[in-house]
Amino acid sequence: MSDESIPNVLAQRYASAAMRQIWSAAGRVRLERDFWIAVMKAQRDLGLEIPAEAIAGYEAVRDRVDLDAIQARERVTLHDVKARIEEFCHLARHEHIHKGMTSRDLTENVEQLQVLRSLKLARVKTVAAVLLLAQRAVEFRDLVLTGRTHNVPAQATTFGKRLAMFGQELLEGLRGLDQLCRDYPVRGLKGAVGTRLDQLTLFGGEVAKVADLDQRIVAHLGFTRALDNVGQVYPRGLDFEVVSRLCQVSAGASSFAKTLRLMAGHELAGEGFLPGQVGSSAMPHKMNSRSCERINGFHAILNGCLTMTAALAGDQWNEGDVSCSVVRRVALPDAFFAFDGLLETFLTVLGQMEAHPAVIKAENDKYLPFLATTTFLMEAVKAGAGREAAHEAIKEHAVAAARALRSGEESGNPLPERLAGDPRVGLSRERIDAILSAGDRFTGAAGEQVDRFAEQAEEWGRRVPDAAGVKPGKIL
Amino acid sequence: MSDESIPNVLAQRYASAAMRQIWSAAGRVRLERDFWIAVMKAQRDLGLEIPAEAIAGYEAVRDRVDLDAIQARERVTLHDVKARIEEFCHLARHEHIHKGMTSRDLTENVEQLQVLRSLKLARVKTVAAVLLLAQRAVEFRDLVLTGRTHNVPAQATTFGKRLAMFGQELLEGLRGLDQLCRDYPVRGLKGAVGTRLDQLTLFGGEVAKVADLDQRIVAHLGFTRALDNVGQVYPRGLDFEVVSRLCQVSAGASSFAKTLRLMAGHELAGEGFLPGQVGSSAMPHKMNSRSCERINGFHAILNGCLTMTAALAGDQWNEGDVSCSVVRRVALPDAFFAFDGLLETFLTVLGQMEAHPAVIKAENDKYLPFLATTTFLMEAVKAGAGREAAHEAIKEHAVAAARALRSGEESGNPLPERLAGDPRVGLSRERIDAILSAGDRFTGAAGEQVDRFAEQAEEWGRRVPDAAGVKPGKIL
Amino acid sequence: MSDESIPNVLAQRYASAAMRQIWSAAGRVRLERDFWIAVMKAQRDLGLEIPAEAIAGYEAVRDRVDLDAIQARERVTLHDVKARIEEFCHLARHEHIHKGMTSRDLTENVEQLQVLRSLKLARVKTVAAVLLLAQRAVEFRDLVLTGRTHNVPAQATTFGKRLAMFGQELLEGLRGLDQLCRDYPVRGLKGAVGTRLDQLTLFGGEVAKVADLDQRIVAHLGFTRALDNVGQVYPRGLDFEVVSRLCQVSAGASSFAKTLRLMAGHELAGEGFLPGQVGSSAMPHKMNSRSCERINGFHAILNGCLTMTAALAGDQWNEGDVSCSVVRRVALPDAFFAFDGLLETFLTVLGQMEAHPAVIKAENDKYLPFLATTTFLMEAVKAGAGREAAHEAIKEHAVAAARALRSGEESGNPLPERLAGDPRVGLSRERIDAILSAGDRFTGAAGEQVDRFAEQAEEWGRRVPDAAGVKPGKIL
Amino acid sequence: MSDESIPNVLAQRYASAAMRQIWSAAGRVRLERDFWIAVMKAQRDLGLEIPAEAIAGYEAVRDRVDLDAIQARERVTLHDVKARIEEFCHLARHEHIHKGMTSRDLTENVEQLQVLRSLKLARVKTVAAVLLLAQRAVEFRDLVLTGRTHNVPAQATTFGKRLAMFGQELLEGLRGLDQLCRDYPVRGLKGAVGTRLDQLTLFGGEVAKVADLDQRIVAHLGFTRALDNVGQVYPRGLDFEVVSRLCQVSAGASSFAKTLRLMAGHELAGEGFLPGQVGSSAMPHKMNSRSCERINGFHAILNGCLTMTAALAGDQWNEGDVSCSVVRRVALPDAFFAFDGLLETFLTVLGQMEAHPAVIKAENDKYLPFLATTTFLMEAVKAGAGREAAHEAIKEHAVAAARALRSGEESGNPLPERLAGDPRVGLSRERIDAILSAGDRFTGAAGEQVDRFAEQAEEWGRRVPDAAGVKPGKIL
Repeated sequence: MSDESIPNVLAQRYASAAMRQIWSAAGRVRLERDFWIAVMKAQRDLGLEIPAEAIAGYEAVRDRVDLDAIQARERVTLHDVKARIEEFCHLARHEHIHKGMTSRDLTENVEQLQVLRSLKLARVKTVAAVLLLAQRAVEFRDLVLTGRTHNVPAQATTFGKRLAMFGQELLEGLRGLDQLCRDYPVRGLKGAVGTRLDQLTLFGGEVAKVADLDQRIVAHLGFTRALDNVGQVYPRGLDFEVVSRLCQVSAGASSFAKTLRLMAGHELAGEGFLPGQVGSSAMPHKMNSRSCERINGFHAILNGCLTMTAALAGDQWNEGDVSCSVVRRVALPDAFFAFDGLLETFLTVLGQMEAHPAVIKAENDKYLPFLATTTFLMEAVKAGAGREAAHEAIKEHAVAAARALRSGEESGNPLPERLAGDPRVGLSRERIDAILSAGDRFTGAAGEQVDRFAEQAEEWGRRVPDAAGVKPGKIL
Repeated sequence: MSDESIPNVLAQRYASAAMRQIWSAAGRVRLERDFWIAVMKAQRDLGLEIPAEAIAGYEAVRDRVDLDAIQARERVTLHDVKARIEEFCHLARHEHIHKGMTSRDLTENVEQLQVLRSLKLARVKTVAAVLLLAQRAVEFRDLVLTGRTHNVPAQATTFGKRLAMFGQELLEGLRGLDQLCRDYPVRGLKGAVGTRLDQLTLFGGEVAKVADLDQRIVAHLGFTRALDNVGQVYPRGLDFEVVSRLCQVSAGASSFAKTLRLMAGHELAGEGFLPGQVGSSAMPHKMNSRSCERINGFHAILNGCLTMTAALAGDQWNEGDVSCSVVRRVALPDAFFAFDGLLETFLTVLGQMEAHPAVIKAENDKYLPFLATTTFLMEAVKAGAGREAAHEAIKEHAVAAARALRSGEESGNPLPERLAGDPRVGLSRERIDAILSAGDRFTGAAGEQVDRFAEQAEEWGRRVPDAAGVKPGKIL
Repeated sequence: MSDESIPNVLAQRYASAAMRQIWSAAGRVRLERDFWIAVMKAQRDLGLEIPAEAIAGYEAVRDRVDLDAIQARERVTLHDVKARIEEFCHLARHEHIHKGMTSRDLTENVEQLQVLRSLKLARVKTVAAVLLLAQRAVEFRDLVLTGRTHNVPAQATTFGKRLAMFGQELLEGLRGLDQLCRDYPVRGLKGAVGTRLDQLTLFGGEVAKVADLDQRIVAHLGFTRALDNVGQVYPRGLDFEVVSRLCQVSAGASSFAKTLRLMAGHELAGEGFLPGQVGSSAMPHKMNSRSCERINGFHAILNGCLTMTAALAGDQWNEGDVSCSVVRRVALPDAFFAFDGLLETFLTVLGQMEAHPAVIKAENDKYLPFLATTTFLMEAVKAGAGREAAHEAIKEHAVAAARALRSGEESGNPLPERLAGDPRVGLSRERIDAILSAGDRFTGAAGEQVDRFAEQAEEWGRRVPDAAGVKPGKIL
Repeated sequence: MSDESIPNVLAQRYASAAMRQIWSAAGRVRLERDFWIAVMKAQRDLGLEIPAEAIAGYEAVRDRVDLDAIQARERVTLHDVKARIEEFCHLARHEHIHKGMTSRDLTENVEQLQVLRSLKLARVKTVAAVLLLAQRAVEFRDLVLTGRTHNVPAQATTFGKRLAMFGQELLEGLRGLDQLCRDYPVRGLKGAVGTRLDQLTLFGGEVAKVADLDQRIVAHLGFTRALDNVGQVYPRGLDFEVVSRLCQVSAGASSFAKTLRLMAGHELAGEGFLPGQVGSSAMPHKMNSRSCERINGFHAILNGCLTMTAALAGDQWNEGDVSCSVVRRVALPDAFFAFDGLLETFLTVLGQMEAHPAVIKAENDKYLPFLATTTFLMEAVKAGAGREAAHEAIKEHAVAAARALRSGEESGNPLPERLAGDPRVGLSRERIDAILSAGDRFTGAAGEQVDRFAEQAEEWGRRVPDAAGVKPGKIL
């Protein structure tokens, strides 16, 4: 890397090689050349006079990608596609590519191919994250945890159930991403304003031949359908749709990461550490949730990319213009790089994450009596207490116990002791302790809910078998 | 309306009564009361001791909604749900509602019901817009129009094809909206932290009964599935998904509106005027595209609501909190009101829109010679001219003609005359005029593309028959 | 409130009466009528033939605001300003208002007046929040607190210093808000496309008179300067600027609120409770940070309003259009209502907030040995230990102590004991305890920094004396 | 550039070398090393034992920047600052840098320096754009133009005045940018949680020395003030502020660009072409507004970066964390690159832009009679016509003339002829033509307004003399 060059930080620091390859300048040039060759072959098959030796000439130089030479041409022509046409023709010593095509017949389709491949990669990785999250949820299926709402103790749950909850959020995002992988349509060869005029002219107005040509191209790109009515460009609402689906998947990971950061603050759990990693140059014992914080950061970046694409959707003038050009050059790859980096990080955290059961238990011991007040009431009534009187007594003691803990008068939760001493409640200390020790009665259907998530994850694993092989790269 | 009150401007000025009804305070209170009654009945059927007379007592006062009384209670309790429970019990003179329920067991499900009903209304109206747009596209199927890219003349198209192009954008949005209407899941009765503890306790731990209860509720609300793993709340990524799908539909309408504003600037078409409407108090002849501008405005508002929901998605702490509360109170209804107002306006414009064929023809006459340069070249070569020489000649004359028009030297396009006089081209004036007069040869497959859009619109009309009956209200 | 009406929830539930008054429909009608009367008087003074009795006639009916009647007129004219002109003239039985004015000559200036008054109200309340925050920071100036980065213990600070840190963020926002209150420019009477043609025509081309007229109007509105070059509208970048400044102030309050929610999760501090307030209908002992959560919610809404105004800025077509109209009707009042509600809530929380010193101390006791490791090292070296050996020893013991606490082997922090027993460190247990007990040595310059914030707050209090009288209303 | 590397497209394609230099990886390493050296020198001057030869050793290797080596170290340490410390120490063969500093003591200050330098560069270029815009406005001061609102003809203006209008929008943005250049505060050496503990410890608690140290650093960085109360980080609201000010300046350029695109659609003006530039590979005569479209694109990107920074502002947890890290790595440089690219493009367009007076005149001829209706009325009344009757007649004829033009019945505007023939109006054809030919009477104060803008531009030129030397680079 030269001193002056500015890399794309998302691509270079965070994204995987697979994602980078889709969006690299050289990779794109190769995709374009493949596309031109495919069009030439189809045109020749359908009767256009294109010599076989010309096609062979192009094929021979397909991999001679000299980005500097192309950029030099662009500084003269002030037109990027023209520069790439000239370079390819110069190398091949022929002039047969791009027949009956406009710039956008090339760039729209090639960019949509980049999007489709990226979407599919995103889907595989998301399923991998679902599988790993399910595995950890099953591992912690029955680890009782103090559930929190408003960030304060509310009711017992399990750590596995908490993970499954974020799994549900991930699944809802995956649903939309998966649908889009199947529904995402390509523009096809539609000409300067979308009427197919240029190819029709080339083929003497033979509509059937032109339709045939388009079908061959669509199949070449790996799409399932083409748009019928477009202008110079495909509707930019599709770009917005792509990024919005990524944002929704990333929301599940982001909620998970935020909660793990909160849990790390209580030392209940942590994202784990690699050997050799240093938390802070000044404080070596510190276990920072750097990776989780980064996940939240990627989510913010994705939302920024969404804003960029939202500015393009609904802003088409006539048959289209290129005010979207520079925006799409930034927002589309950056959204996929950020999403890819997010999933790399998420998979790493899911693999290394550790719970601290002793701390979790200490928290439960402190708060469980509060969380059990409704159970105490029920048991008191069963044992013969008056409902209103018992309710009033429990409420009094609960508030007093909370105050005593906060004021430092007490270090352990005094609620069981206080309740045992109150005749309005009528429960012995032994009975109260027995209720509290039956921990699983407080976690409701948490275990079964975890099982249900694991089943759903397995279903996705069967549908997307490639996910099983995904391993995150080493992250910074 | 009292002097001090501030109405929701989107609801009061722009949205339809049907959408307002879903989100009105009183309507919501009634929905909640229905929900409580349904839960009581199900709980009684499943064995809970709830007297029939209590249920009857609640049913008798279901419609006695006094919002001021409820607000007065809230100022005391500082808790909105508690205020509404107290009011309903006070009216009914019973205390049997809300058993084993948390606030969110009520509010999450009722709000999701509001969302689902609004989504379905949005879908019907979108299909209505597709149908009307298709009708107008067919009407203008063959009206040749100067297509534009970069806002300057590029190639011929037809007005119908241009409309179908925006129809395609609408259809892509409708695809996602329609999927969501079918996939949108409800939270169900899941308790304080999502473990179903409270209902399980109520039913003595009988898992089957609680599952039965949940199913009855889900069916009552009209959903097709419930989420398995939630916390106190359903994942806020769903709110983001809802608004993002609305944004994408609105993008199609917004692109249409922007282009109609551009066309009005050239007097090629206009959004039409109602009798009595005044364009401008100072300039009565002025035909302003006020409604189209408003459509673009609604789109901007939807994007703002999207930003609000994007801030909630991925920000769940533990089992959930209410930092989302005030945001959802604003963003969800406002998104639906803006969307509804946008569609009311869009339907009105689609109904009244008029083309000005004489102006369209004059523009074609001016620009068609430029748009036909590739055809001239092809014909020149056919007629025996050298390809390179003819290309050079045509380019020279095209640029010179463009300059002559801009400099005012010429008022009509001099290109045909110039070409006819150049031996390098070798086409007679008669031949050139013949080429230009065969207008439809320049519009490629535009007509067939319009037909294809009309077929797709009909398909949607069959799937969503209610759309046929939609009529926009009178807009301001 | 009728069943069908949908109130603006931000205005009705959260904003103050003072802010509502600025933006109410009736209030705006009165502002407009004042504006018309002021223009008539100025025009008459400058020589236009406007009978004194006409002016008196308008003044007599200024307060007869019938919003329903105006709306009825608008449904006929489809033009809101025309409707309000007709109503006012009908009531006054004269036709002298709005001379030489376009709709925007009225609405732009009146709306800018609403903005300016709202900005000034926002400024006063922000200064009030700074003052109250400073008061609480001074109160907790020396309360030692475990500072956290990455949400885990990092180094000691004081609660007062933490509050001052958020005060700094608030001050940076206030700086921009204050500048804007002074710099915000008004459009003035500039006519249909900004050339002042209409008033010039009215005054026979006398430029001096028209300039005089404009100056009188500017002074009437309370601005300090007018824009020279506008079109039909003032540049919408100003709306963006207004909302962005509000967002920045709200960021300070939002960071504070988020941190108080975190502290409440550790029971270190809480937002306080009003008598009668219920945390949760099911769990009465629960102390939820509802108000802080709401502050974060308002911040998200403000960011959504910013997105709306960002869509308008940079989107002016020619001399302007009204695609911004519906957006500004929503985004401007909603931004101010959300900001006002945020500050009402913030002031309430600042007033009621309480710290729990016993819990704070227990946390310090647990973590202080970790936070003091650099001090131990320094003291060990002073006492003769080898630097590298001591560093290695301290690191070993710190990591082991952290693990022991997380694994539950130890309930108190074993680090002091471990260090005292290690000859590589060479510090006695007494020396170590003495170091730890000198709590203030770990808080650096925290106290002086709080004092500095208090001074800055006082400066603002002197500059904006109205702030001293601000009291938040009772919040829901 | 290797095949695999992904460059930052904004930096490499659009931004200037000056902006790239500020944000390049190598440039940043050099800035950091300068910073460390400055801190060492100050610490030594204030009494710390740092050998002169160590400082010399660091200085000697300051420019030996090997990014690959640093990245290799980071893969081991998983900590970027530690990697850069190690590399610098390894090269210098000393270990004296970074004393009493945390990572953020380094990175926060160096990043703020990057921001400040970028802000100042942005300011100089913005003033250059104001100057060039004023020059062109003066050039076209009196070129009468059909002003448009709602994108349809409204009233006459001049092209110069239209440019001055966008100049005003630019000036409002410049006001805020200029203020921020002066007010932007630096964090300084504040330690791990902002209490200055580490430097105080280093200097034996001598507050005065530490304050002296901070002042020396602040001065070294070129700031005018430091924040008093920070945590680990400076408040992220400042990042939001920076990007929001850039967005506002870019709004002025964006409105200009959008309007020039509209004008190009009518061939009234164009952005000009460089020799050799090709509008479209298929249509060589086409004059596309590519650069103006790109300006609009940059504006959309800036709004996306604003969304990213908005997600950070108001989200501080305790004394700070690094969930902002990856976001700031993307949003800050990208915002400045996009802004810089926008200004490079804007300056280029301002330099090349050309008007087409003949087309402008033809448009005026067509619409002027409509724009003059209020003048006709006034003159008719002066000449003795009844006001109401004349008004009615003019309105009738105006609407009929508009219809005749749109229907193609008439090619020239028939309004003058029609009015001359109507006794209710009472104006002769000669009188009407005389009114219409006095073009400047319709442009009001447009000329004086342009002069006022030119004066303001000159004032800025005097305040920021560097602006005079700015020349845009050659754009793609």
